Amino acid sequence: MRTRPLKVALLGCGVVGSEVARIMTTHADDLAARIGAPVELAGVAVRRPDKVREGIDPALVTTDATALVKRGDIDVVVEVIGGIEPARTLITTAIEHGASVVSANKALIAQDGAALHAAADEHGKDLYYEAAVAGAIPLIRPLRESLAGDKVNRVLGIVNGTTNFILDAMDTTGAGYQEALDEATALGYAEADPTADVEGFDAAAKAAILAGIAFHTRVRLDDVYREGMTEVTAADFASAKEMGCTIKLLAICERAADGGSVTARVHPAMIPLSHPLANVREAYNAVFVESEAAGQLMFYGPGAGGSPTASAVLGDLVAVCRNRIGGATGPGESAYAALPVSPMGDVVTRYHISLDVADKPGVLAQVATVFAEHGVSIDTVRQSGKDGEASLVVVTHRASDAALGGTVEALRKLDTVRGVASIMRVEGE
Amino acid sequence: MRTRPLKVALLGCGVVGSEVARIMTTHADDLAARIGAPVELAGVAVRRPDKVREGIDPALVTTDATALVKRGDIDVVVEVIGGIEPARTLITTAIEHGASVVSANKALIAQDGAALHAAADEHGKDLYYEAAVAGAIPLIRPLRESLAGDKVNRVLGIVNGTTNFILDAMDTTGAGYQEALDEATALGYAEADPTADVEGFDAAAKAAILAGIAFHTRVRLDDVYREGMTEVTAADFASAKEMGCTIKLLAICERAADGGSVTARVHPAMIPLSHPLANVREAYNAVFVESEAAGQLMFYGPGAGGSPTASAVLGDLVAVCRNRIGGATGPGESAYAALPVSPMGDVVTRYHISLDVADKPGVLAQVATVFAEHGVSIDTVRQSGKDGEASLVVVTHRASDAALGGTVEALRKLDTVRGVASIMRVEGE
Repeated sequence: MRTRPLKVALLGCGVVGSEVARIMTTHADDLAARIGAPVELAGVAVRRPDKVREGIDPALVTTDATALVKRGDIDVVVEVIGGIEPARTLITTAIEHGASVVSANKALIAQDGAALHAAADEHGKDLYYEAAVAGAIPLIRPLRESLAGDKVNRVLGIVNGTTNFILDAMDTTGAGYQEALDEATALGYAEADPTADVEGFDAAAKAAILAGIAFHTRVRLDDVYREGMTEVTAADFASAKEMGCTIKLLAICERAADGGSVTARVHPAMIPLSHPLANVREAYNAVFVESEAAGQLMFYGPGAGGSPTASAVLGDLVAVCRNRIGGATGPGESAYAALPVSPMGDVVTRYHISLDVADKPGVLAQVATVFAEHGVSIDTVRQSGKDGEASLVVVTHRASDAALGGTVEALRKLDTVRGVASIMRVEGE
Repeated sequence: MRTRPLKVALLGCGVVGSEVARIMTTHADDLAARIGAPVELAGVAVRRPDKVREGIDPALVTTDATALVKRGDIDVVVEVIGGIEPARTLITTAIEHGASVVSANKALIAQDGAALHAAADEHGKDLYYEAAVAGAIPLIRPLRESLAGDKVNRVLGIVNGTTNFILDAMDTTGAGYQEALDEATALGYAEADPTADVEGFDAAAKAAILAGIAFHTRVRLDDVYREGMTEVTAADFASAKEMGCTIKLLAICERAADGGSVTARVHPAMIPLSHPLANVREAYNAVFVESEAAGQLMFYGPGAGGSPTASAVLGDLVAVCRNRIGGATGPGESAYAALPVSPMGDVVTRYHISLDVADKPGVLAQVATVFAEHGVSIDTVRQSGKDGEASLVVVTHRASDAALGGTVEALRKLDTVRGVASIMRVEGE
C-alpha cells in the first residue's frame, strides 16, 4: 500500500456531508485497505463555520470553497451542496485544478452533465455521481458498466421517496392527497415546500440522467415530460383497486419499438399489483430495467437519507481513488448513440379514463365513436349511474399519447360528457 | 477510437458461449463505441468441431483450447466451459500468456478464486466473473465497487433458479418435492441429474464467492454449511403458511454481531411472506444485502439462461477491454479483513420444529424442560392430537445452531417423543 494519503475536499457538510466525513473517520482503515492508500479529509467547505460539527477538526472547516478546490493538492472533491450554483462552478474549478469529482447533485448533473463530463475528459479526471439517482441503490454503475454489453430497452422506476411515501399512505389508509402529504411532512419525509418532489421535478432530473446512461444518448431535462402527483385522488386509488392495480409516480425511459428514438417521462400511473414495483412501500425506491439479453432486472433500496446517500458517495470515492492511483479514469459520458428524444405525444401506452356523463341511452355509443375516430381501441368499459348522472370508466388498448389527447379533447366537446374526472396511464403490463 | 481491434478467445460454445458470440457479432458497433475499440472474435475452442454453429466462422473453431490461449495475441479470454479442469489450467495459461479473463465459472472461482486472482495480479491482468453468481443480476460489481465504502453485514439470497422453481411450484400447487422436480425437469429448469442444484452445491459455491467479496475475507467452499432441499415436504409448506411464511432455499452470509467473524451457509428456510424474497417466483433469483450505511438493498433478475448469462459476460468483457486500453486493471481480490469463518454451530437464528409425540399429560412440560436446559428460549408452541398420537410445533427465539442441535438430540431420547418430523430455520425477520 502507498503511504502518501489521497486528499479529499468535502463541499457541504449537511445531512449527507457529515455522514461522509464520519464514515471516512470511523472506517479509515477499511477505506485505506480497499483503496490501496489512506484517504485524508483535507478540507470541509461550509456556509455556517460556527456550527459545531462532531468529529470534524475545526481547522479543516472553511467558508471559502473556491480557495479549497483551487488548492492544487486535492485529489478528490466530494460535492454534496446540491443545486446549480455555486456547485457547477466549484466542480469545474476543481477539475481544472487537478481533482476528480464525486457528486450527489441530480439537478446539476441532469442540467449540465454533458459540459461537466467534457471538462473531466479534457483534464483526464473522473466525474462520478451514483448518489444522484436513487440514493444508496447501485444503479448508475450497473447501467453504465454491468449492462455495457447489453441493450437496455426500458427503465421504469420509483425514484422519489417522498411521493412514494404519500402514494403508499393513500393506498394503505384511503387518505386523500393533502392528508397523506401532511403525514409525510410531520414524519420528515416531505420538505416544508414539497414542490420539487410532488410536482415531479426531482424524478424528472433522475429520469434524464437514467435515460442518458441507458440509451447512450444525451437527454436534457427539457426532454423529460413531467406531470406531478398532486391531483391523484382517493377515487383514483379506488379505480386502480378495481383493476387490480395501485398508483405510483413513475420515471419511465423507453426506447421506441423501432429502436430509432427514445422517450423519458415522469407521471403517476396505475401498475398491476403483481408487478414488483407495486410492492415498493413507504419511502423506498426501486428501478426496473428491461434489456435485450438480461431480461428484467430490479434494483431496490432506500432512495434518500444521509447514511444511504453517503454509502453511494463513498463507493464512488473508493472507485475514483483507485483510478487515481492506477493512473486511469473510469467510464465517462457515453452519448455516441445520439438517438432523437421523441415528445410525449409519441409515447404509446394504455389509459384509464373516468368520465362523468349523462345517464341516458346512446351515451356509450357516442363515446365509443369518439375513441374509434381517433384510432384508440377500447379494452373495457364500465358504466355506473343513478339520478340522471353516470360515470363511465374506459380502459384502452395501447395508443399514442397524441391520439389519446385528441380523443379526450373531442370527448369534452360532447354534450353528454359533463366532465373528464381523471386520466391515468396504465404501465408495467 | 483506436482502430486495432481487441482480440477475444472464447472457450466453450454452448448455451452461453454461442449467445456471447452472437451478441459480439450483431452488436459489434455498440460494443466498439462503448469500449473505444472494436472487439474481434479471434478463436472459439469447442469439444465438437463438427457441430454447425450459426454465425460463427468455421475457420475460428478449434479443439485445441491450450494453443488458443497460448497464442500471445489474445487480449481477453472468455471462459464459459464450466467445471474445474481444464478451465483452471486454461485460465492460468491465458493469464501467463498476457490475456485478461472473463469467466462464468462459479465452481472454479469458489474453489480456486484466490490462486487465480493471485496469478492475474502477478501478471497485471484482470479476472472478472459477474456471471458466476446470479446470472444477469449485477451483484459482484455492486458489492465490490458500489458498496466499497460501506460495511456489508449480511447477504441473503435466492441464488439457484432450479430450486426456486421447485419450491415455488410446491408452494403454489401444494405438490410434493418429487412431483415439482419432475415438472421442473420437463420444462427444462432442472437437469437430468439435479444433484448440484437440489443438494445446494451450486448455491454453496455462490455463497462462498459472495461472502468473500462482501466481507473482504477468503471463504472456502468447505467453509460453507450446506443442506439441500430434497427433504422439504408439502407438510412443511403447510406449517410455513400457518406462520405467515413460505420456504426458500437461501444462501446466507453473515457477519457475527460482534463483527469478529463471519458465517456462510445454504439451507431451506422459512421466511415471512412480507419479506421481498418471499415474492421471488419461478426460476428468478434475488439477493438481499444489508449494509451499515446503505441499509437494505435488493437485486432481482433472471439467475441463469444463455442470454442473461451472456449479458453479464459481455458487461465484464467491456470493462476488461476498457481497462486494457487504459493500461489499468480493475479491483482484484480484496481479502485484507481475513476474518475467521465460524462453523454452523455458531450461527444464531430461529427454528421451527415439528415433533411427533405421545398424546398424554406432561409431554409439553418435558419438552419445554429440554429446551430450557439447552438455553433455547421458546417463542410459541402449538399442540394438536388425536388417538394417542399428537404433534407439537415449537418455534424458538434466536439461539445458536449448536444449542438447537443439542436440544434436538436430547428430545430424540425422550420416551414421549416418537420422532422429529422436521427442523426448519426461520430467516428474514
